[in-house]
Amino acid sequence: MSKRPDIQSLIDEIAEAVKPEFGKGKVADYIPALARIPGDRFAMAVCAVDGSEWRTGEALRSFSIQSISKVFTLLLALETIPPDELWERVGREPSGTPFNSLMQLENERGIPRNPFINSGAIVVTDAIAAHSASPVPHLMNMVRKLAGNPGIIIDEEVARSEEDHGHRNAAIAHFLKSHGNLRAEAHRVLHLYFRQCAIAMSAMDLARAFLPLANEGVVPSSGEQRFPALRVKRVNSLLLTCGLYDGVGNFAFRVGIPAKSGVGGGIVGIIPGKYSICVWSPELDELGNSHVGTAALELFTRKTGLSIF
Amino acid sequence: MSKRPDIQSLIDEIAEAVKPEFGKGKVADYIPALARIPGDRFAMAVCAVDGSEWRTGEALRSFSIQSISKVFTLLLALETIPPDELWERVGREPSGTPFNSLMQLENERGIPRNPFINSGAIVVTDAIAAHSASPVPHLMNMVRKLAGNPGIIIDEEVARSEEDHGHRNAAIAHFLKSHGNLRAEAHRVLHLYFRQCAIAMSAMDLARAFLPLANEGVVPSSGEQRFPALRVKRVNSLLLTCGLYDGVGNFAFRVGIPAKSGVGGGIVGIIPGKYSICVWSPELDELGNSHVGTAALELFTRKTGLSIF
Amino acid sequence: MSKRPDIQSLIDEIAEAVKPEFGKGKVADYIPALARIPGDRFAMAVCAVDGSEWRTGEALRSFSIQSISKVFTLLLALETIPPDELWERVGREPSGTPFNSLMQLENERGIPRNPFINSGAIVVTDAIAAHSASPVPHLMNMVRKLAGNPGIIIDEEVARSEEDHGHRNAAIAHFLKSHGNLRAEAHRVLHLYFRQCAIAMSAMDLARAFLPLANEGVVPSSGEQRFPALRVKRVNSLLLTCGLYDGVGNFAFRVGIPAKSGVGGGIVGIIPGKYSICVWSPELDELGNSHVGTAALELFTRKTGLSIF
Amino acid sequence: MSKRPDIQSLIDEIAEAVKPEFGKGKVADYIPALARIPGDRFAMAVCAVDGSEWRTGEALRSFSIQSISKVFTLLLALETIPPDELWERVGREPSGTPFNSLMQLENERGIPRNPFINSGAIVVTDAIAAHSASPVPHLMNMVRKLAGNPGIIIDEEVARSEEDHGHRNAAIAHFLKSHGNLRAEAHRVLHLYFRQCAIAMSAMDLARAFLPLANEGVVPSSGEQRFPALRVKRVNSLLLTCGLYDGVGNFAFRVGIPAKSGVGGGIVGIIPGKYSICVWSPELDELGNSHVGTAALELFTRKTGLSIF
Repeated sequence: MSKRPDIQSLIDEIAEAVKPEFGKGKVADYIPALARIPGDRFAMAVCAVDGSEWRTGEALRSFSIQSISKVFTLLLALETIPPDELWERVGREPSGTPFNSLMQLENERGIPRNPFINSGAIVVTDAIAAHSASPVPHLMNMVRKLAGNPGIIIDEEVARSEEDHGHRNAAIAHFLKSHGNLRAEAHRVLHLYFRQCAIAMSAMDLARAFLPLANEGVVPSSGEQRFPALRVKRVNSLLLTCGLYDGVGNFAFRVGIPAKSGVGGGIVGIIPGKYSICVWSPELDELGNSHVGTAALELFTRKTGLSIF
Repeated sequence: MSKRPDIQSLIDEIAEAVKPEFGKGKVADYIPALARIPGDRFAMAVCAVDGSEWRTGEALRSFSIQSISKVFTLLLALETIPPDELWERVGREPSGTPFNSLMQLENERGIPRNPFINSGAIVVTDAIAAHSASPVPHLMNMVRKLAGNPGIIIDEEVARSEEDHGHRNAAIAHFLKSHGNLRAEAHRVLHLYFRQCAIAMSAMDLARAFLPLANEGVVPSSGEQRFPALRVKRVNSLLLTCGLYDGVGNFAFRVGIPAKSGVGGGIVGIIPGKYSICVWSPELDELGNSHVGTAALELFTRKTGLSIF
Repeated sequence: MSKRPDIQSLIDEIAEAVKPEFGKGKVADYIPALARIPGDRFAMAVCAVDGSEWRTGEALRSFSIQSISKVFTLLLALETIPPDELWERVGREPSGTPFNSLMQLENERGIPRNPFINSGAIVVTDAIAAHSASPVPHLMNMVRKLAGNPGIIIDEEVARSEEDHGHRNAAIAHFLKSHGNLRAEAHRVLHLYFRQCAIAMSAMDLARAFLPLANEGVVPSSGEQRFPALRVKRVNSLLLTCGLYDGVGNFAFRVGIPAKSGVGGGIVGIIPGKYSICVWSPELDELGNSHVGTAALELFTRKTGLSIF
Repeated sequence: MSKRPDIQSLIDEIAEAVKPEFGKGKVADYIPALARIPGDRFAMAVCAVDGSEWRTGEALRSFSIQSISKVFTLLLALETIPPDELWERVGREPSGTPFNSLMQLENERGIPRNPFINSGAIVVTDAIAAHSASPVPHLMNMVRKLAGNPGIIIDEEVARSEEDHGHRNAAIAHFLKSHGNLRAEAHRVLHLYFRQCAIAMSAMDLARAFLPLANEGVVPSSGEQRFPALRVKRVNSLLLTCGLYDGVGNFAFRVGIPAKSGVGGGIVGIIPGKYSICVWSPELDELGNSHVGTAALELFTRKTGLSIF
């Protein structure tokens, strides 16, 4: 049914169509560096497995990727440590509770439900730190190569701000430690965690970095098999069932593709065999996902007929 | 990547490969009629969108479809009542708690998380009953037509047995009633609910009945657009995020397709654009999904490379 | 410290002092028979262990005792069945959750926290029913004798109304049944339970009926040791830690005596060695306890210095 | 009913009677300094409001008072800051969940249920710290004066050990901070909290220190009104409903007096108008209360008939 669409026209049309949605969400305000971003920004970037690229809006402007970094750290962990070791410390099920819930951890003996909620990502970060003397350079190197952009940096102001206001994440880290599910000291893991959340990338950077997930692990430009095909399928399945906090079901219902969101307003989506897509718009819905970004992705899959279902 | 496989050889090979798994699960024993089924049964049936069919094992033997009926009632509800009305009474998110949990209902004011947990299915049944004077014949008619088998019946012994032992479902129904999320009297809805769970179908019946979900809503044999394409995509997305109780994440990770399981040991899976598949084997894992059936489906998607991710 | 106060003056003064509190609570409205009671009613009755009695307001007017009946059924159960058998089926700890919570039951395998929350009282009623062919006459006989009033009856309109609107209690009963903590059929136990809640008594009736709990089990007028002294101490301890739903801590802090409340607006309190007291005023606070009644009891213990602490 | 008993004979008899209970509990082992205390130690000390004192066993040996310190910090807070300010930050209800639960905090917006669970005590400590430049000397001064023993000190090894292993308390403190219910930095409050838990006192010290709670606030030896009578009643009520973690109901049922336990094996009890009692024996039951100590107190109130009920 789905003929090759004219992607450039489509995303320009979407950028226009979502305008009435501005003002319905709320920019993240828990740290000043995020709170001061104007809410009515928008960007969309699409990469195809044949190497084509399209973009609209502020697609070259960097924003704070926040939880989208959890996909990078998971990918890094899966090539650093034995998967069985990782999956003993973190589950693979949707959480069914808000993204920073301690309740679930308490009921389930300190094993986070999945690697995309805060507690799970902190365990993943700890796992990486246990196998690398310099985990942050290691991660940044991976991210820059995937995006093909050596200029990607950590926004140090955001990182410091996270650290100053990250009491809940500190509670999670200490709680994991009390359950024996943290190897390093809580404050060290938190320091790494806050830095990874503060990576700044553009929508174009992110679409490029995620393209191998749409292409069975292969980087189209070089032909390199960057990740094994089976691992990519599995990460995509985790994105679909766990990538949007409490909103995975509705997102799958409306949009229908694996995706990961961050409170900086970015969402990256994967259409296996076809495209990686990144949208950015800072206003969030009540679950913490970009309101306008979700609407844009819904339009994209609706108009192209390209959901995975 | 995925060449057209020889399905018959593949499913015969799978039937052989899963034999060591018998004895690792546990046949549902909460009602005698289910408990006496021997655990080492196996069936697998596959239908293709081009009309081809394959089967292995006891694929023509009827078993109790149990929770798989929840897909039929959802499909019936979606063509009986306005969707918005339904989605106000039942959510679309994975539950994150065991399939018969009352706790979640209590925390969320009587709105079940999704239509595939017991509470959600009871609400769906109530919604159908409110719009139909004879909901059971209505449902049976739909099921028989989809499966192309006018001989499909309700196993009355199972239905009575469910009713005698269904105290937890009775608790759920009365609880929904206390929250105003049940129109009919609790005992009437329960009567209907226990009957739909007791429908007996074969693996072949089920694979045929679900084929339109793999074919954008079209029945291949007749060309009839039985369900709108968008509705099919959405039901598939719900199956992926909510179709396997507490095990959706791991099932998506291992198998990677929309599916629905029942405690009778059946699992139906959808590979959009390609196949509908039904496996049956009565021993369940600790989450209530067929242990051998899951292994068989995992082999199927692994060997064909045909997951949705 | 506490000189013998002039009780009549004191309670008349209290009846005056609480007047500004009318209108701050809310009459129970879940059944019509309760909802139509005017909110600004007030009664107070006090019995002393020396046989003296005082009353003010509408102390001879009958009201629906509701949950206060749970004390009578516990006392009846404790003399009908072996205590160990009862305490295996119901706990003795404050619930920490609203009085009709199913969540706690789900987490604790169907063992209610204590006999004064609905689930616990339903188990107690079931225990009595298992040992008595005619439990309701048995209970009524006990209540009438304790109160010295053969005219005490069940308000059949209230009983029917409870039954019609008791969906949540029905959910609880079926849930207990699903956990094997109900011997009789759910509907039979519910029928008994709704009838006991619908007993109508006056404040004077209740103060008299509870006097043995203030007198080490002895009925002052006859000298009869109606209950063993140790059992009375224990029931009083349960009243203090579990008698006021979620409000036990604040009630103990403010009033400082064992007590039991009902949504009909009654509260019965015990000052061991001295008095039994009943107040009645239909407006409830957000926890389901009489707002004005609590204020009146607080004034009583404050002014007499007679709390148990 | 209760004639003046011969207390010395009674407690000697109790010390003998509880011997078969040794070995049924388990010494706290989460820090080495506590784990190495032999389990079969026993002490009991009783002070009367007329100034009499009795003791048996190792009543002059110091042990770690742990959570018993929460009563001292509450008393200090109640005379340092306005009560209304304190009761806005911490509740007065039994928790119904284990003593270090984060779940309840999450559900109730960071307001601990009562001042005797860890979260509540941490808030109380923070409240004191906000009003005192040197809170620890301030507290030690109060404790030493109440006990009449200037030699009472903090066991620095225990304090350090608590700090090294206190990940769960650290999680609680950071969580309170994230809810805005901590003024000082988490690590500073934790440092104070761990030090107060490490105060070492003997059974005799503790019985003396708590005697004003049995005497309407008056120190018998000096006649000083150390605490207002109403405050003492209220603290006693809190001890009864919240002083023994998850075991308040059973303790009230069996023993029937206000009390506070600590994981060091101490329990202090109050019989208003009569006695303060301290027992010590390190083996704990599964709720964290001294197993032998509870048995000893039960014998004391049973044999004297002196419960508050």
